[in-house]
Amino acid sequence: MSKPIFETAALVGTGVIGRSWARVFVRGGCRVRLYDPDPGQARRALHWFHEDVALDVREGFVTRADEALWRDRVTVHDDMRDALKGAGYVQESGPERLDLKRAIYEAMDRTAEPGAILASSTSALDVNEFAGAVPGAWRCITAHPVNPPHIVPLVEIQSSAATKPEVQEKTIAFLTHCGQKPVVLKRYINGFLLNRIQAAVVREAFHLAESGVADAEAIDSAIKDGLALRWAFIGNFGTNHLNAPKGIAQYFARFADAYRSMIGDLRNEPPAFDKDTLGRIAREIGMGESEEEVKRLSQWRDRMILRLKALKKDHPRP
Amino acid sequence: MSKPIFETAALVGTGVIGRSWARVFVRGGCRVRLYDPDPGQARRALHWFHEDVALDVREGFVTRADEALWRDRVTVHDDMRDALKGAGYVQESGPERLDLKRAIYEAMDRTAEPGAILASSTSALDVNEFAGAVPGAWRCITAHPVNPPHIVPLVEIQSSAATKPEVQEKTIAFLTHCGQKPVVLKRYINGFLLNRIQAAVVREAFHLAESGVADAEAIDSAIKDGLALRWAFIGNFGTNHLNAPKGIAQYFARFADAYRSMIGDLRNEPPAFDKDTLGRIAREIGMGESEEEVKRLSQWRDRMILRLKALKKDHPRP
Repeated sequence: MSKPIFETAALVGTGVIGRSWARVFVRGGCRVRLYDPDPGQARRALHWFHEDVALDVREGFVTRADEALWRDRVTVHDDMRDALKGAGYVQESGPERLDLKRAIYEAMDRTAEPGAILASSTSALDVNEFAGAVPGAWRCITAHPVNPPHIVPLVEIQSSAATKPEVQEKTIAFLTHCGQKPVVLKRYINGFLLNRIQAAVVREAFHLAESGVADAEAIDSAIKDGLALRWAFIGNFGTNHLNAPKGIAQYFARFADAYRSMIGDLRNEPPAFDKDTLGRIAREIGMGESEEEVKRLSQWRDRMILRLKALKKDHPRP
Repeated sequence: MSKPIFETAALVGTGVIGRSWARVFVRGGCRVRLYDPDPGQARRALHWFHEDVALDVREGFVTRADEALWRDRVTVHDDMRDALKGAGYVQESGPERLDLKRAIYEAMDRTAEPGAILASSTSALDVNEFAGAVPGAWRCITAHPVNPPHIVPLVEIQSSAATKPEVQEKTIAFLTHCGQKPVVLKRYINGFLLNRIQAAVVREAFHLAESGVADAEAIDSAIKDGLALRWAFIGNFGTNHLNAPKGIAQYFARFADAYRSMIGDLRNEPPAFDKDTLGRIAREIGMGESEEEVKRLSQWRDRMILRLKALKKDHPRP
């Protein structure tokens, strides 16, 4: 692997998202310094890191050489100033509360290295709101990952009005180098891209489940044995484009009326997310309901995604 | 492969969907008899069948032994009665017009073998409407595939009020034997499951593209580098379920408010599907706009889906 753009990255906040970022950054060749206001949390994250890498070594997804190389590259620091020392890139993964986020950004901007980029994992807040007013607003940016980032590559990038263009460029170059897939939001929108599209699917999937037209497993099957087999390679517009010999314009020339009719028929209201419906869905999808079962299936899911990513890398779009 | 439930299947209508069904049924061990009101169409379908199998042999997706076995198993018949002779299962893939579909069903019911199942590929019509009144309504059923069915396994099954339960059971068993994934609709709904969920994504993807918040390639990336990597293995509810340690009820206990907020913000109206937007999307996704490019990418897409299916088969859900 070529030299990383930043030799050292720091994490502020080391929960489920933060600790996964540690794996992204070591993969990119960095040393990673962990800080959490709860020092126990940072230690648990470090413990998870080593356990998770060891598991991946056993399953053949990480080499023993990488494991050895990474052993001392991730360190815990109880003081934020200490953690940020030497870090050219800081990834913040704190709580989604505007007041807390503002306070964290003020603290990070005071203590980080002069040129360091301060990126936030926020999925909900506008970088203009929580980092637009700090002196170093020019180096603050949102880099929202998908859970867990070391498995799912997408990262949504939002600059504030104050963010310097080269901060966005460097962030994109760095994350790409680390194996992520950054995409740019031109402005803030509630839910960004990914969670909005997920919400659109959640809305209609619940509508179908609640209408009694099919059970939850059939609805999931329409996705996993149908739609997502194409989406995983070509997305939505790509699917439309390749579904007519002359592309997307011809596709919608044929099917716009059918789409108008279906869209007119979709549910616009949010689901109630009531206990009964959620309980029935859980039973119908048959994935088990114990923490142990959920964990076991999540590990399988993550390994399947790694295999799918390898497949895509081995057979790029011609 | 074990003996098929039906030794002979017949196709009525041999366009893009019909000809692909031929590949599904030979894979299941059947002889396949093609009929199309336009005899030239049936001959083109047979030609496509041999070309497409040969291409798959060259790329390693079909063995030479299977190609040889299948060589004489697909035949063209200019007369419907002749085509349906000996067929225990008939798959109709005609135009999506109620009057035409009714006429085809009357003709098929008159000419098919006494016990034969008459399945329709319709994506839009209600089997009660087009086959509820023929004398053999009890053997008529909808089996709606995804394009192309020999690549994408999902099939949506709808029985009419008159369909015998054993017809639905046999149809499901037969399609499963042939490598498809049938799911049951308990009643008719506009767009069935798959196209409704696709319409929900189309609606929000166009909304995002038209709002100028991101370009079309970024929106597709949110799906192909994000959402669909999970959906391809566990669907929507499965994704929700595995996103909290205690499953879907805990997930929505945490995130129901965020979903309500996003859903309240999604667009409810259908897109205009105007030329300018479609042209811009085509440029931004960069897949080319010539028929040649679309065909080349479609072949790549189909092969990627075959590889993904193999991956899922090799590593089933634990």
